[in-house]
Amino acid sequence: MKNLKVRRDKIRKNFSEWFDNVLSENQLYDWRYPLKGCGVWLPYGFKIRKFVLEELRRLHDETGHEETLFPLLIPEDLLKLESHHIKGFEKQVYWVTHGGTTELDVKLVLRPTSETGMYYMYRMYIRSHADLPLKWYQIVNTFRYETKATRPLIRVREITSFKEGHSCHATREDAERQVKEAEEIYSKFFDYLGVPYVISNRPSWDKFAGAVYTHAFDTLMPSGKSLQIGTVHYLGQNFSKPFDIKFEDIDGETKYVHQDSYGISERSIAALLGVHGDDNGLVLPPNVAPIQVIVVPIPFKDAPEDVFGESKKLEEEIRAGGIRVKGDYSDLTPGNKFYKYEGMGVPLRAELGPRDIRNNKVMLVRRDTGEKISVDRENIAETIKELLNTIQNDMREAAWARFNEAILKTTNLEQAKRHVRRLKGLATVHVCDDEECTMKLNEEHDLDVLGVPLNMEFKPEGTCPICGRDATRVVLVGKSY
Amino acid sequence: MKNLKVRRDKIRKNFSEWFDNVLSENQLYDWRYPLKGCGVWLPYGFKIRKFVLEELRRLHDETGHEETLFPLLIPEDLLKLESHHIKGFEKQVYWVTHGGTTELDVKLVLRPTSETGMYYMYRMYIRSHADLPLKWYQIVNTFRYETKATRPLIRVREITSFKEGHSCHATREDAERQVKEAEEIYSKFFDYLGVPYVISNRPSWDKFAGAVYTHAFDTLMPSGKSLQIGTVHYLGQNFSKPFDIKFEDIDGETKYVHQDSYGISERSIAALLGVHGDDNGLVLPPNVAPIQVIVVPIPFKDAPEDVFGESKKLEEEIRAGGIRVKGDYSDLTPGNKFYKYEGMGVPLRAELGPRDIRNNKVMLVRRDTGEKISVDRENIAETIKELLNTIQNDMREAAWARFNEAILKTTNLEQAKRHVRRLKGLATVHVCDDEECTMKLNEEHDLDVLGVPLNMEFKPEGTCPICGRDATRVVLVGKSY
Repeated sequence: MKNLKVRRDKIRKNFSEWFDNVLSENQLYDWRYPLKGCGVWLPYGFKIRKFVLEELRRLHDETGHEETLFPLLIPEDLLKLESHHIKGFEKQVYWVTHGGTTELDVKLVLRPTSETGMYYMYRMYIRSHADLPLKWYQIVNTFRYETKATRPLIRVREITSFKEGHSCHATREDAERQVKEAEEIYSKFFDYLGVPYVISNRPSWDKFAGAVYTHAFDTLMPSGKSLQIGTVHYLGQNFSKPFDIKFEDIDGETKYVHQDSYGISERSIAALLGVHGDDNGLVLPPNVAPIQVIVVPIPFKDAPEDVFGESKKLEEEIRAGGIRVKGDYSDLTPGNKFYKYEGMGVPLRAELGPRDIRNNKVMLVRRDTGEKISVDRENIAETIKELLNTIQNDMREAAWARFNEAILKTTNLEQAKRHVRRLKGLATVHVCDDEECTMKLNEEHDLDVLGVPLNMEFKPEGTCPICGRDATRVVLVGKSY
Repeated sequence: MKNLKVRRDKIRKNFSEWFDNVLSENQLYDWRYPLKGCGVWLPYGFKIRKFVLEELRRLHDETGHEETLFPLLIPEDLLKLESHHIKGFEKQVYWVTHGGTTELDVKLVLRPTSETGMYYMYRMYIRSHADLPLKWYQIVNTFRYETKATRPLIRVREITSFKEGHSCHATREDAERQVKEAEEIYSKFFDYLGVPYVISNRPSWDKFAGAVYTHAFDTLMPSGKSLQIGTVHYLGQNFSKPFDIKFEDIDGETKYVHQDSYGISERSIAALLGVHGDDNGLVLPPNVAPIQVIVVPIPFKDAPEDVFGESKKLEEEIRAGGIRVKGDYSDLTPGNKFYKYEGMGVPLRAELGPRDIRNNKVMLVRRDTGEKISVDRENIAETIKELLNTIQNDMREAAWARFNEAILKTTNLEQAKRHVRRLKGLATVHVCDDEECTMKLNEEHDLDVLGVPLNMEFKPEGTCPICGRDATRVVLVGKSY
């Protein structure tokens, strides 16, 4: 793959600025709403979001999940039923205290996540083993009163696009099988977006409030910081007991269900924008690009060919292949058009000039590599479909290559710390089994511990740098958003 | 059209009970959530909602609307910018006063509707006449602290499915043309659902808070009460001035935009369930039925035909035609299956017994009329597609016929009052131009005044029953939800 003009200096050095710019310049997501941590999805961004959520829905539906919609408001007493859960969330929920001029008898929270609201109802839907597994999901807005600095799509107070799956199972085994299914769904989803990830078993001190264990998906943003983009929790019976979700098993015994919950938010969109972007702006994977191909006519003074008319025909030929195509026949110069659609991340540009028309050719320009390819006009839709596929795959592979390069495999804690401090990415630390030691990596060495990776193999070597005992596992560390 | 067994006695006499039952028995929408006025969309209901919203989106997209998503939370000072608007809503908004344990500096409301939040941002997107018209919409949850008795899907505190359109225009003319476009979209939408409606110009004392005028869509539920299912507001410059939404016109002058807003909620779903239902349960229009055809095998003892195997083949033949079909091969008796899918409103049942198999036939049973039709197995998908179309049209026509029958055309106020008091539907009242008189119809005669109908013709006759002056217009009155 020829890489003609891809630059990633600006985006790496000042990712925040780059990110804010691509969001605002392309009318994607507007952060100027007069309330900290809340943004507006503008039409172009909304379309990207739509394609992303469509795939997420498809992956859930094809695995037997059913979509539902539960209320936003959760009464205080429900939220408090699971004690770890309320401890984890009480400092970051929004409280509704008044309706009109009336003070409410029971205070309400805006759901920070929906375990408590959903599980209160779940017990009404589950009677017997025949009702299990129950696999429901919803895509909703949730709220966190974040006290840290907020960032568009990354650390928000209104999470506008929270896909949360909530399953109930007859046995621990089945619930843990579902943990794997959720991980497969999320892996397919991120593969579809071309976003690389490590799946980690989070340290027990960093698991979801109320979970038995948490597996998390993290990617690396161009800043060198890691971003948690998905989580899968095995909840055991921690919720089913206080929420009284029981079933009659085949053996006639009444048992509490085992549960999972698993979530993905608009951070997945932040990730796809960041991971593929370059110094010229967005680079969208064809799968989720609102415009997959932009047709730009290149008129030449005094040339007899009808460049605009032919370009419109070309646009229709491409559209007939089921491709999302747009032609720009405005007064802008071709150069200005190139600049505009490059910034918007349109994966492919189709240029048509008098010579192309004479030779029955089209000039295609790839956004991801800058490569120019002159192709036959005949069967243009087929040619472009294949090329979009190639771009999609190349983008995923290139993103994975950058991701893997940014993981420092070392047994030396100081090297790992230097790598992380310089925001070069993730690094390995070989440790013992004691979670106290991983906590010290965090507290005393300023490392964010992602946990033991589940989709990468590292062989433990040497001794734990904290306690000196033999290393028995390898954790990944980095600097997290 | 043969009407073999349709009964509407129960549904008319006790619509509330009927409605609650069909919602809960079919796992459609659960009203037992432990917070008044908030319900849960369960899988079957969610699918109906999905098909309804897909059509609503399609109609907006094909008319050049763009979908967006604005924040739920609106700061108090924004809500208060338009004085009529805040007066109309201050008693029915939920207030968020705390984030975690911190009292917020600025109180926030859960949007009751999004004019104020959206229009604050709109001024940033509009600079010149070239940016107009701007036609954006969103489908979101909104909140009203209802003090009246709440009812599932009809009077809720969390409106889960509020489609709100918000447009900006250079001139009053263009904004009023858009009012008509919105009315056309809504008319097409309700036609798609087979829901009859009258469009009325609401009395000025009943218009939307902040509007110049309001046109509203109302239908009649089986209870005989009218239900407002859509509104279109011309806002004039009432919001653009306080929100400072200006543009430079072709003539170089800076002007305030003219605006419309128009909304539809899950009441449209309440309407489609109520309007078509009968004493046996739901009757869903094929357009939005999650299951359009249910295949029921009718095995006969000792018959040599493989009824289950053939039914599965039949199911696949139907599915190949792009029809949403399901086969029920469970242990339930055929009678129990009939009962179950009738209750769920499945528009068409396909029965297959040994004799049907021998004769290469299928027995089709219409949910709307009860009619049984024996058809050839050959080209079954085509046959069913046509029949579903027929059912769709017949259901719309039948609903309109019931609707029109329930409108009493009279010039006599006492007759009109009696009709309304007996919950027989709507009635005409011939009045003068003075809105004081229509207000007295409401306050002194206990009539809900829908206003002057825009899609029906009535010729004013006689004198206004309130003031005795010549009648100049006809308003429709009824008892509203």
